[in-house]
Amino acid sequence: MKQQVHDAARRARVAAGTLAVTNRATKDAALHAIADALVAGTQTILAANGADVDAARAAGTPENVLDRLRLDDDRVAAFADGVRSVAGLPDPVGEVVRGSTLPNGLRMRQVRVPMGVIGMIYEGRPNVTADAAAICLKAGSAVLLRGSSSAARSNAAIIAIMRDALTATGLPADAIQQISADDRSSATHLMQARGLVDLVIPRGGAGLIQAVVEQSTVPVIETGVGNCHVYVDAAADLDMALDIVLNAKTHRTSVCNAAESLLVHQEVADVFVPRVVAALQEAGVTIHGDATFCAADGAVVPATDEDYAQEYLSLDISAKVVDSIDEALAHIRQFSSGHTEAIVTGSLAASTQFTTGVDSAAIMINASTRFTDGGELGFGAEIGISTQKLHARGPMGLTEMTTTTFVVTGDGHVR
Amino acid sequence: MKQQVHDAARRARVAAGTLAVTNRATKDAALHAIADALVAGTQTILAANGADVDAARAAGTPENVLDRLRLDDDRVAAFADGVRSVAGLPDPVGEVVRGSTLPNGLRMRQVRVPMGVIGMIYEGRPNVTADAAAICLKAGSAVLLRGSSSAARSNAAIIAIMRDALTATGLPADAIQQISADDRSSATHLMQARGLVDLVIPRGGAGLIQAVVEQSTVPVIETGVGNCHVYVDAAADLDMALDIVLNAKTHRTSVCNAAESLLVHQEVADVFVPRVVAALQEAGVTIHGDATFCAADGAVVPATDEDYAQEYLSLDISAKVVDSIDEALAHIRQFSSGHTEAIVTGSLAASTQFTTGVDSAAIMINASTRFTDGGELGFGAEIGISTQKLHARGPMGLTEMTTTTFVVTGDGHVR
Repeated sequence: MKQQVHDAARRARVAAGTLAVTNRATKDAALHAIADALVAGTQTILAANGADVDAARAAGTPENVLDRLRLDDDRVAAFADGVRSVAGLPDPVGEVVRGSTLPNGLRMRQVRVPMGVIGMIYEGRPNVTADAAAICLKAGSAVLLRGSSSAARSNAAIIAIMRDALTATGLPADAIQQISADDRSSATHLMQARGLVDLVIPRGGAGLIQAVVEQSTVPVIETGVGNCHVYVDAAADLDMALDIVLNAKTHRTSVCNAAESLLVHQEVADVFVPRVVAALQEAGVTIHGDATFCAADGAVVPATDEDYAQEYLSLDISAKVVDSIDEALAHIRQFSSGHTEAIVTGSLAASTQFTTGVDSAAIMINASTRFTDGGELGFGAEIGISTQKLHARGPMGLTEMTTTTFVVTGDGHVR
Repeated sequence: MKQQVHDAARRARVAAGTLAVTNRATKDAALHAIADALVAGTQTILAANGADVDAARAAGTPENVLDRLRLDDDRVAAFADGVRSVAGLPDPVGEVVRGSTLPNGLRMRQVRVPMGVIGMIYEGRPNVTADAAAICLKAGSAVLLRGSSSAARSNAAIIAIMRDALTATGLPADAIQQISADDRSSATHLMQARGLVDLVIPRGGAGLIQAVVEQSTVPVIETGVGNCHVYVDAAADLDMALDIVLNAKTHRTSVCNAAESLLVHQEVADVFVPRVVAALQEAGVTIHGDATFCAADGAVVPATDEDYAQEYLSLDISAKVVDSIDEALAHIRQFSSGHTEAIVTGSLAASTQFTTGVDSAAIMINASTRFTDGGELGFGAEIGISTQKLHARGPMGLTEMTTTTFVVTGDGHVR
């Protein structure tokens, strides 16, 4: 299996060499060809997906996981559209990041170049397959896709279609390759193929990400776990606060930018806690609260530290009253996963203190945590949301899938 | 030891919280206080360093390693000057990297913020201690310095002086801490203190860097190994080529941007090989060459693949004649460590092909490999040269020691 992964990486490196010198027009033509082929191949994809779903159901997979695995005409059309939208974005490769003529006459420029070979390790969401391949292709890199075994047939169908479209455009099919998920070890070999793979991105639950971070010798970008907080300040507009809490918690519960924890300043607790408890209950949310929340009229269950540390990804929220913004910040620093924290306040001082006191990828002031998203922030495409500080932090688009090189031109300059 | 490292990291986190909200004027005042204190404390530093050097000599340490360990008045003055020059550089913290008002009225800005807690793992060069501390401080991060046990007394003296200067400026001394090198395991605990340490930078030989890369669970920036090539093209000015080869190889041999391998196009081999062999020999360089080089009139020893893969860091160079620029590029792709490659050519087509065909942190066109250096490229300070593609590639200055956060401001925006 190790040999298989390494051979795939070597073929990917050769393909990446071609992509690196392929211009935007050709890459965009390939992306449109891929999108057309995905739509044309919908029945093939759905047949393969049906087999995956049947096998997963037979294995007792829960319904919410089946739902992420399941494709239909609309979902295939949606990811084909996603591929087309990547074609519409500017090419990051070749951008001159900085440049100058140095005092000694050397001409220096730092130029954006492709990453090379990118490994994706992800769970049973076949839409990631097309998304990731499109973004890597546009950014000039080859991609090795190691999805979940539960989606292996769906991924194989999608990848075969994309590879054929590459070949038809005159680009190397090996720019997009599937790494077999038959054997668990293939993921390990991928993340340890140092020198053959330039970057590994895990996408999935906390367990997957933790495993990749601990075992990888290839540089990793950690994505996604979001224990996001909404802090309702003493100076909050409470109607606005209610809207934001409800939206952040209930708009979509299974995503990393959903709110998982609510902090309320004690000065507004008397008024706000009963209102928010009633509204969340009506929306079907279970509140895991401190003593003040538990005393409210509603089915609140007592919160433990485990609740405060939890990324529920469900209709659950932990909740706590704090004495001050300082206590809120201390709580966030203790429990946050560094994804997104929101403050609702009318106070400029409070918003400034919150912004400097929080150490997360994104900070929302009077806005829902749900806006931490490449599409919402105008990046056009997103391969994941980084919760680490190195290379990329927050939503990652095409630019984040590139690196740079220094090109220095002289006339025989020596030191 | 693990507890000790973790406690130090926690104290560093608290100190980093203060640094993050410290303005440039205060940080620069601290840097000047540190520089003054280092000069004033020269005798203390030299006494500690003398003890380190004596112990290392008694342990049979080779002279070139002793030379890197040894300090004198000039060297202390030089690193104090380095600290002052960091004070003179702009503050990277607070820079708005991008910002816009989104169609829905949300105000988005991506702001540069400190990394947090940075771990440095390095060998017996006490000058790194002051350099790294100054750069991290200016970039708003706390630093944990894990130097070599051979330099422990020197580092302790330097760090004590810097910490006192911080306290005198009203900044937390724990922003600069020494991690004991008494126990080998302290380095392991530092690189595995995930969640407590944001970034680890190894500086030293290939063995140290490899160990950190393989064992670290904290994100790492790989620095420094440089198997740098000079390719003399068919269209090269051969006088210029001779100057560049000699400079790149002999200007300073122990540094990562020195040339370690010479490739010569066969069209100019008849003329150039004898000239370069004679010149390198006169400069005391041993050539490890292919058959053509071995046939030249001079003491050339036959090269193996090990030679081509070698970072000599000495008066040695591997050398080979290639049939074409394609063969040169293939050779570089096979053996390069991704640091710096130079081409000497008068051909625009050759320089373009070289630039797109090489996958390294820096590419020199008609200039010595020795220019891959933060000081030479005008960055003012350098904490190392990254040979990986993630986060930073090439010389790293203050900007590369920061991360960013997205601050999004709304008026009650929900999705």
